Amino acid sequence: MRWTMPSDKVPEAWFNAAPHLAAPLDPPLHPATKKPVGPEDLAPIFPMALIAQEMATEPWIDVPGAVLDILRLWRPTPLVRARRLEEALDTPARIYYKDESVSPAGSHKPNTAVAQAYYNKQEGVARLTTETGAGQWGSALGFATALFSMECKVYMVRASFEQKPYRRVMMQTWGASVEPSPVDEPGHPGSLGSAISDAVRDAASRDDSHYSLGSVLNHVLLHQTVIGLEAKEQLQMAGEERPDVVIGCCGGGSNFGGLALPFLPDPEVRLVAVEPSSCPTLTAGRFDYDFGDTAGLTPLLSMYTLGHDFVPPPIHAGGLRYHGDSPIISSLVRHGRMQAVAYPQGKVFEAAVQFARTQGTIPAPETSHAIRAAIDEALLAKEQGRERVIVFGYSGHGLLDLQAYDDYLGGRLDDQ
Amino acid sequence: MRWTMPSDKVPEAWFNAAPHLAAPLDPPLHPATKKPVGPEDLAPIFPMALIAQEMATEPWIDVPGAVLDILRLWRPTPLVRARRLEEALDTPARIYYKDESVSPAGSHKPNTAVAQAYYNKQEGVARLTTETGAGQWGSALGFATALFSMECKVYMVRASFEQKPYRRVMMQTWGASVEPSPVDEPGHPGSLGSAISDAVRDAASRDDSHYSLGSVLNHVLLHQTVIGLEAKEQLQMAGEERPDVVIGCCGGGSNFGGLALPFLPDPEVRLVAVEPSSCPTLTAGRFDYDFGDTAGLTPLLSMYTLGHDFVPPPIHAGGLRYHGDSPIISSLVRHGRMQAVAYPQGKVFEAAVQFARTQGTIPAPETSHAIRAAIDEALLAKEQGRERVIVFGYSGHGLLDLQAYDDYLGGRLDDQ
Repeated sequence: MRWTMPSDKVPEAWFNAAPHLAAPLDPPLHPATKKPVGPEDLAPIFPMALIAQEMATEPWIDVPGAVLDILRLWRPTPLVRARRLEEALDTPARIYYKDESVSPAGSHKPNTAVAQAYYNKQEGVARLTTETGAGQWGSALGFATALFSMECKVYMVRASFEQKPYRRVMMQTWGASVEPSPVDEPGHPGSLGSAISDAVRDAASRDDSHYSLGSVLNHVLLHQTVIGLEAKEQLQMAGEERPDVVIGCCGGGSNFGGLALPFLPDPEVRLVAVEPSSCPTLTAGRFDYDFGDTAGLTPLLSMYTLGHDFVPPPIHAGGLRYHGDSPIISSLVRHGRMQAVAYPQGKVFEAAVQFARTQGTIPAPETSHAIRAAIDEALLAKEQGRERVIVFGYSGHGLLDLQAYDDYLGGRLDDQ
Repeated sequence: MRWTMPSDKVPEAWFNAAPHLAAPLDPPLHPATKKPVGPEDLAPIFPMALIAQEMATEPWIDVPGAVLDILRLWRPTPLVRARRLEEALDTPARIYYKDESVSPAGSHKPNTAVAQAYYNKQEGVARLTTETGAGQWGSALGFATALFSMECKVYMVRASFEQKPYRRVMMQTWGASVEPSPVDEPGHPGSLGSAISDAVRDAASRDDSHYSLGSVLNHVLLHQTVIGLEAKEQLQMAGEERPDVVIGCCGGGSNFGGLALPFLPDPEVRLVAVEPSSCPTLTAGRFDYDFGDTAGLTPLLSMYTLGHDFVPPPIHAGGLRYHGDSPIISSLVRHGRMQAVAYPQGKVFEAAVQFARTQGTIPAPETSHAIRAAIDEALLAKEQGRERVIVFGYSGHGLLDLQAYDDYLGGRLDDQ
């Protein structure tokens, strides 16, 4: 069963998590002075509207009409009951997933890319720069800027640029310009850290350009809350009073936050972030101020971190290979309102293939972390003989990650 | 604007075109005796239920509940108004598209794959064989057999097997076994003809196996009519009395037929098939009996054909590279109820990129033929200053065809 909603049901206001936190977030610190950053520090690379959202305390923030118009190209996304998976598991649990894979870029990322492109365009910015690893975020921003007739420059980690051309082609199809990073070291395979440096340097050096980030920051999570807001309404349509647990994969936190934050006001709903064992930020990191990038150019954020010089192994869930995490998610985990679990990728792909063979669609490796945790919750419910309502985020499809499936099915996957 | 419908709105009966034809179809002829084939000739490779549907004359045929249950995983598919494309074209026409790309396999193909797997399973068949070129059909059948816990053996044209591994991986993820064809000539690049021969020979030689075909035949088009039936209802929701024109890309005819056939009863609705200039079956072929495969193993069908030994050039719209066409579509074109147009692939990709940069999603090369024709209809409406309602079939996404976009954007596309 799938619950769809007409286009006019896209939420018209975003849910701000700030009023629901146990304590205000620690302020970001300037990388040089180590003093709290103000709007003027951020203005060279972000529009004022987003800087304001980053610090906003009101509970709801209106979604502009021009943003709604574009979100309605694919939203509301379906909420699906995974009945065939339930049957395969023989569980008394009811499993639902919120399907963000139906967006043009194939993931939840466009929810914020569209909003960021809009606010920049409103303030007269003609060109956005960003970094991308495997390409999910870069393609989302490429899509969004195309629809606002803006220029887009994506610095792509060179190893991905050379080995995984499909995401690059997607971005170019939308008209984005893609360049391998680091730009000044042609032989270097690159890293997300180097690509951030290239993108920020580019934006800061040109009057017509700003920089855009696809996760971690408060305004990014804010834009993603359309996911959870829709899911709550669809659960009502499905006759569920509330879920027992809401599960999402978590790298920088935008997918998990987007689904989970709107459930914050109900203390009965358990919220679970899932990360890879090889990059266990929330489950094994320390809570501290740290840089967002490896080079130390960004403000210091108060968050769980593995250290900004941590280099995660090359697992297939590229979107979860981040040393830090969103300050909002970090705060909620620290205060016990959210939990985190970690899985090795072998167990994750086992779940992905079980999902594909029962529900039919092939999930992204990132998404499969949430599927693994949802299956384990359902199996626990079976063991305990308890009904449970499980909701997880289907953050993206795996159609551009089929190499990972080939490695798994061929026994070539490193089970980290 | 998108018009979605709840799961219980999937049509519960298929629309049979047979009663709406100007004359009964010519019977298929046995390849050896050249006499009309009977059910007993087809029984070694098809289940009786599908043979009966192939020859059915009743106007409606019930969709089995187990088939509906699976179709409801992604159906009804959305009908979308392409407002942003309309604005870019500055046309008075209203353009709608029926989005079949949301299926697990990414195209309309699963609509019949699910039904075929079901009827075979009902008659005790444990294993299906088929051929696939670029992999769209093979992946649809791999998906369908996974959901019915059947075995699936796909003979894939060797050149595609080696050069385009992603579709192979998709099929394997669903549990299908994929083998390069021709099986007995390891150095040969293969062809759809050789793959059909391998698949038919396999199915005929084993008691537990049948063969499955993804287009051309009457029962395949029948299963696809859910597309047009839903679209008619969604057009009503959108406030449209009727479309002026319905457009679909046409290779073997299952996509175009699925959308267009339910509009047959209304003579005011123009129906337009779009094919590649390099494989112009309907626009430049002759109407005659011909084999369905290159080797001459299948029954002779009465259809438009370029000759069963015609070898189309290697264009990117692999799904449209077929020498023949569905007997139903052929008959309707011959009697003037349907029209056909042909386009070279350069013009087709130009339309594809314009679509991606306005509506946001990246279409399959096959689908882009319909987009090209829809754009030209809209431009004609502008020239004539006339309102028009244009509906086209968005048969599949282009996420596994990005190499084609890379070639187009890089100026390496052969404009045939």
